[in-house]
Amino acid sequence: MVSPNKPGLPTFHHLNDSQSQRILWFLEELGIEYNLVCHTRVEGRAPPELKNVHFMGKAPVLVTPDNVPIAESSAILGYLIDAYDKDGRFAAQDKVRDESLSSFAGSTIGTIGMIELIFDIVAGRSPWPLSILLGGVKSNVHKSFTGPEYATQFQYLEKELTDDWFNGKNLGRSDVMLSWPMDFLAAKKYVDFEKYPKIFQWRKRIQERDAWKSAMEKGNGYNLAEM
Amino acid sequence: MVSPNKPGLPTFHHLNDSQSQRILWFLEELGIEYNLVCHTRVEGRAPPELKNVHFMGKAPVLVTPDNVPIAESSAILGYLIDAYDKDGRFAAQDKVRDESLSSFAGSTIGTIGMIELIFDIVAGRSPWPLSILLGGVKSNVHKSFTGPEYATQFQYLEKELTDDWFNGKNLGRSDVMLSWPMDFLAAKKYVDFEKYPKIFQWRKRIQERDAWKSAMEKGNGYNLAEM
Repeated sequence: MVSPNKPGLPTFHHLNDSQSQRILWFLEELGIEYNLVCHTRVEGRAPPELKNVHFMGKAPVLVTPDNVPIAESSAILGYLIDAYDKDGRFAAQDKVRDESLSSFAGSTIGTIGMIELIFDIVAGRSPWPLSILLGGVKSNVHKSFTGPEYATQFQYLEKELTDDWFNGKNLGRSDVMLSWPMDFLAAKKYVDFEKYPKIFQWRKRIQERDAWKSAMEKGNGYNLAEM
Repeated sequence: MVSPNKPGLPTFHHLNDSQSQRILWFLEELGIEYNLVCHTRVEGRAPPELKNVHFMGKAPVLVTPDNVPIAESSAILGYLIDAYDKDGRFAAQDKVRDESLSSFAGSTIGTIGMIELIFDIVAGRSPWPLSILLGGVKSNVHKSFTGPEYATQFQYLEKELTDDWFNGKNLGRSDVMLSWPMDFLAAKKYVDFEKYPKIFQWRKRIQERDAWKSAMEKGNGYNLAEM
């Protein structure tokens, strides 16, 4: 599970079927050397050993060569760009836009997805007839709240995608940040991506990249449908 | 509702009883001139006129003097610090830490709070006996998921607070970002703050600041208990 631990390199702690896949992808985009530790979920949750890496016990965690563990995805990406993107291939084309879209990906979209997921999980674990009732409640929440929220968010993102990437001509932090909620929402079928052709094509562009493909090979699975 | 709109100044769109209170507070901390527009919730939601300010139709929104609307709190704060904190009073003491804690405040904590809130809202609007059943489901979700998550998050933050502020000796973006989830969780009584003495004192320090007090006077209410 642990790759040879070379000193002087960042060490990346990855978890299967999780948002840390996007960081693994970005490490491959950078083309730098790093140590990779793949962790595996236990009963659907992060394994206890991750507590030894960062207090929160979650993935992703990037441990810098100076032994600082960074646990928030946007902070990890910011660090990696500052420290390793010396020729500015992934530089923010517009700093405010980059911060806005990265924050949007981490908070606004994620929250709505979590609400639907919790209802699904709770309904799945509840005995009949509570499971049926909760399914009905989720439908109502979707109709009156999460559904319209998704529509607004996706219309907004569709409008913002005026070039190949959210960052502009070149892939940037906001694209990497947005890839996770998109993959999650697509896998769970919470949103109909056919309605948003620019986002649909953007996702295809990501999946066709060599770095994406090699991250999929190096990780230990990315099946979000069963989360 | 609209204060005199002076050109050349940023314009802040504020919403009562919401997270935009923290941005209003920070504008007061900066001590700069700005135009203030106070919006009022309609049936608990953001009013439709906010759609004219930013596509997402939410608050906070800061419109820069160049007419760029910024809607994500961490991006607004980042912009304000870059543009107006010329003597570095609120500068990040450690960039990675600032990004980590700001992201943590915007995503990790917020998500858990939203889950509890949705269950409360849905239970409150459901007829008997569904309201009782949903109350029971929420108790179970709290016991098995959100409660332990809060405990880990608060232990983590308590541990991180080694100085007066999360940013270090001086107040910074991460403190402002964290103030909202803390106010929300305290008002809703989702977390027992007596258990976390350092966070408790940190909240008191905020509420004793002149800028906090004047932001409370300039806003149009900050009652989160009834959200």
